[in-house]
Amino acid sequence: MNIDINRVKQSKINNVDMVNLNFGEVFSDHMLVIDYADGCWQDPQIVPYGKMNIFPSMCAIHYGQVVFEGIKAFYNKHGKINIFRPQKYHGRLNKSCRRLCIPEINYDLFLDSMSELIKLDKAWIPRQHGYSLYIRPFIFATDNYIGVRVSETYRFTIILSPVAAYYKEGLNPVRLITSGEYVRACKGGLGAAKTPANYAASLLPAHEAKEKGFTQVLWLDAFEHKYIEEVGTMNICFVINNELVTPPLDGTILEGTTRDCVLHLAKEWGIIVMERKITIDEVITASRSGKLTEVFGTGTAAVISPVGEIQHQGKLLKINGDKIGPLSQKFYDEVTAIQYGEKPDKYDWILTI
Amino acid sequence: MNIDINRVKQSKINNVDMVNLNFGEVFSDHMLVIDYADGCWQDPQIVPYGKMNIFPSMCAIHYGQVVFEGIKAFYNKHGKINIFRPQKYHGRLNKSCRRLCIPEINYDLFLDSMSELIKLDKAWIPRQHGYSLYIRPFIFATDNYIGVRVSETYRFTIILSPVAAYYKEGLNPVRLITSGEYVRACKGGLGAAKTPANYAASLLPAHEAKEKGFTQVLWLDAFEHKYIEEVGTMNICFVINNELVTPPLDGTILEGTTRDCVLHLAKEWGIIVMERKITIDEVITASRSGKLTEVFGTGTAAVISPVGEIQHQGKLLKINGDKIGPLSQKFYDEVTAIQYGEKPDKYDWILTI
Repeated sequence: MNIDINRVKQSKINNVDMVNLNFGEVFSDHMLVIDYADGCWQDPQIVPYGKMNIFPSMCAIHYGQVVFEGIKAFYNKHGKINIFRPQKYHGRLNKSCRRLCIPEINYDLFLDSMSELIKLDKAWIPRQHGYSLYIRPFIFATDNYIGVRVSETYRFTIILSPVAAYYKEGLNPVRLITSGEYVRACKGGLGAAKTPANYAASLLPAHEAKEKGFTQVLWLDAFEHKYIEEVGTMNICFVINNELVTPPLDGTILEGTTRDCVLHLAKEWGIIVMERKITIDEVITASRSGKLTEVFGTGTAAVISPVGEIQHQGKLLKINGDKIGPLSQKFYDEVTAIQYGEKPDKYDWILTI
Repeated sequence: MNIDINRVKQSKINNVDMVNLNFGEVFSDHMLVIDYADGCWQDPQIVPYGKMNIFPSMCAIHYGQVVFEGIKAFYNKHGKINIFRPQKYHGRLNKSCRRLCIPEINYDLFLDSMSELIKLDKAWIPRQHGYSLYIRPFIFATDNYIGVRVSETYRFTIILSPVAAYYKEGLNPVRLITSGEYVRACKGGLGAAKTPANYAASLLPAHEAKEKGFTQVLWLDAFEHKYIEEVGTMNICFVINNELVTPPLDGTILEGTTRDCVLHLAKEWGIIVMERKITIDEVITASRSGKLTEVFGTGTAAVISPVGEIQHQGKLLKINGDKIGPLSQKFYDEVTAIQYGEKPDKYDWILTI
């Protein structure tokens, strides 16, 4: 592969406080750009991270023809770089592309160009435990046309952001409130694609949740407002009667990579795993009878995020005394140990570059 | 109001074929820009239409926090400029803003700055009947941050595009196919807001419809797939038993301005108007019994667009012999006559500048 690299004259890393990092605010020195034109992806370019020139008529802005991913890279204990499950994320990116009528990108081009970018900006991979390099690949439609139609040109970009924990709570439990009148996605819509529409729909509900003192919205289904779906920034798992219950991938929720990791690990550990529909009422009942012992979210950004409270229609559930539960902690420890190369990578989740 | 104007040195209009215009491909010499920062809208600026500098981390791209409008201006027979229903469009823009957590913009700032831009680029308003200046106001979130949150900064922009008919069919009937498994919007979602999410959801279904030879998708409701909603680029009206039937504004469809015009005119003309739920089966039955005499879409871009065929689950309805019906023609003639100032503006729809 031929990558054209235009390096920065001087890295800006010395101006960055790599210890006190907020999520997604700081970007590395370079970014990857691959344009799509004349029916194919052109040669990749690595250029200094910085402003792009776009026309105000660019259709990605007006019609949301955009897909994205979130991936992480880590330094392992041998000083090599671990990328976590790039193939899985790439598969989901292409799945999102198909739903949004965006041309797919092949794995070799995706991986080779991403790896090249990460290697060039490896100084930006934080070395502290709990920190990582967050990789944001995204593809946006670049036709300059304001009728509604599928674009003929696109730009694939990867930007890199050194990050600490996603929630300010870190591994302390978050507080969720159910979605009330709002809906994130419904069958036949975009819920299973990683695309701006789902996040746009969540902004007002999440804002109202925050005003009420909650961290995030726990989305219920669009039709009956009773089946639990996901948390917008993560999938959700319940430990009931020592069994792990999580909503199935039925087209309205994102197919989470960390969710997949947790299900793999749980099965290996002999835990009964059930991907099945679960109502908020079942959760409330299980909580009252003492059978609900843990609730946690799974997501690339947060890894494992314990849930300490869920509010639904004025009822407030307290979970595990508002502390992280043993299983949540074990999943977090195991996933991060594999990510940092501290434990064997039995499932081939790590690509070391 | 203080508008900073930076004029182009030389207009590019002489390079444009103002007769053979496709919708939304050509833009005028200038654009309006108003930035939102520190909790308020800043002074408006008119600058040459051209590229903007944005960071690849701009949250509008990643999370779709964007709203927009489509408005039209015309030359009237006295050589003055008519803007059609600016107050109505402004109201809808602010309604969209509220759903997307975007700061509202007050009417005076909106109207005065838009008028100033149109006056400056008045040479771009086509003078032929059936043509117009399409005005695209939009607001996009400009924070450079890739966590999911409400932006603190925004840009309000207006671009202008001289246009002919929206559909290549012009006033010839379009062909619609029902949405099948796909859903545009559902209650509690973004369906009533003019925001990219709804259009993103429609791209694949519209693409598949086109491959089958149809112009657009006729969206059915998210839950039962039987109630008719809208056409994505327009609202829909049925003439059954000489009564005008159109789906109600129940939160899942866009509150169309042309729809509102048609309902006003129909009532004035003594036509019974029913804003009520209507199923695709009722339409099929009415068609078979000969009671369905016309179907047409209403939208700013298309004005009135007669529908000649509707396909639903393999059944193909032919409407009015695939010709524009008398009522569709009368609505088109009346609305455009008011727009071009050829008929009295009884409803105060026109703002002449």
